[in-house]
Amino acid sequence: MKNALIIYAHPEPKSFNAALCDRAVSVLSEVGYEVVVSDLHAQNFSPLLDRPDFTSAADPDYFKPQTEQMQAVEGDSFAAELKSEMDKLERADLLIFQFPLWWFGLPAILKGWVDRVFAMGFAYGPGIGNYSRGRFKGRKAMLSLSTGGPLSHFANDGLSGALDVVLWPIQNGMLNFTGFSVLPPFVAPGPARIGDNERAALLTAWEARLRSIDETRPLNFHDLDDFDLKGPEPGRLKPGITGRTVGQRSGL
Amino acid sequence: MKNALIIYAHPEPKSFNAALCDRAVSVLSEVGYEVVVSDLHAQNFSPLLDRPDFTSAADPDYFKPQTEQMQAVEGDSFAAELKSEMDKLERADLLIFQFPLWWFGLPAILKGWVDRVFAMGFAYGPGIGNYSRGRFKGRKAMLSLSTGGPLSHFANDGLSGALDVVLWPIQNGMLNFTGFSVLPPFVAPGPARIGDNERAALLTAWEARLRSIDETRPLNFHDLDDFDLKGPEPGRLKPGITGRTVGQRSGL
Repeated sequence: MKNALIIYAHPEPKSFNAALCDRAVSVLSEVGYEVVVSDLHAQNFSPLLDRPDFTSAADPDYFKPQTEQMQAVEGDSFAAELKSEMDKLERADLLIFQFPLWWFGLPAILKGWVDRVFAMGFAYGPGIGNYSRGRFKGRKAMLSLSTGGPLSHFANDGLSGALDVVLWPIQNGMLNFTGFSVLPPFVAPGPARIGDNERAALLTAWEARLRSIDETRPLNFHDLDDFDLKGPEPGRLKPGITGRTVGQRSGL
Repeated sequence: MKNALIIYAHPEPKSFNAALCDRAVSVLSEVGYEVVVSDLHAQNFSPLLDRPDFTSAADPDYFKPQTEQMQAVEGDSFAAELKSEMDKLERADLLIFQFPLWWFGLPAILKGWVDRVFAMGFAYGPGIGNYSRGRFKGRKAMLSLSTGGPLSHFANDGLSGALDVVLWPIQNGMLNFTGFSVLPPFVAPGPARIGDNERAALLTAWEARLRSIDETRPLNFHDLDDFDLKGPEPGRLKPGITGRTVGQRSGL
């Protein structure tokens, strides 16, 4: 049995995002996943990375998040709210973020989930590795999002900028960084501006994506071995390797 | 007298981000700005866009953020916490976000400030316009951020991806979208990994940026007139106009 974890972030239980979340639960269950949902609003999940994340303090006089996180891993002193999310994440073979794209990014409650749950010492950091040697290597993650505007806004020459640029911080910076294989995003464009039939069609398209999820090819990111990690300019592509992502675009 | 508003987001009052914020207050005051700081952690600012944003409800049965925001503008029914931030923003000729780059983006508390304060009907939306015809046209905004890794990670062929790609959602999606002229970001790379002398040098570099802020050329974004806004594929560059940003990169 494989495990799926959906992090669902929308304040309205009757929203289209809720419908997408429900559909994922039923379809993934059908195709052999045990599905867990973190409904962040229902859980009253706090987005604030701060002292209450920890039941003790490494340094009561100076709050350095990463230092506190490292010590909390060591001393098993994360707040119960975080321990519970970390446990779910440890068990997940597939991670899905279900959210409305707000201001080109995650709603704050979901960004806060990442800030707090992807803790140093747990999700990355000394002795763990990152990117293609990251903590969650071998697992899959994907974004399922609604937008306000039409898809043409996210074209390569669109007003919002190309979708892979808009999503780079999430797909590369959060998911690829921690080792996940990132599946192409599912986008529901402007569900508030269309009719019931079109919304039903979006749910059907989402269902098709979910049914083929185990056969879906992940997005391409550079392997960590493509980069020089030492020297005066660490983290740049090795000579002879041309960038082929929107982030490393020297070869595009 | 010009007004500057700094939105400062760090949980530790003795952090380097706090030092950058303090320096901005003193230097901008010297060069003729009246400076207001929103210290989000000190204010216990909530990052959650939800029912408590409003003192009344447009639709008590279905929470659609934008609908509630439009009605709150109409009925002057934003919560006091938001009204106060909106008042500060109305007065600001210069807006600065001071923050540590967490997971390639804004800390949740600052993302939540944008989610809630940049409300539809106030910062954008019907009758207001966006991008080069946006609400805050004629005003300036800029990011001042610290990173965990070195600057080479944010090179054009760097591990994290080019800095302008990483910051695209913030600089284009939040600031340019609402009409601000976006000044080049100030980046303090890895202040936790360097010594006091290097940190002092970063503060001096920041001070120099601030002293020349009125002469600093903003980043280039496409004018709204470069896009076809109607038709079956709205929001794409007009024929003959080649993209020259990282988001609209057809011409790069």
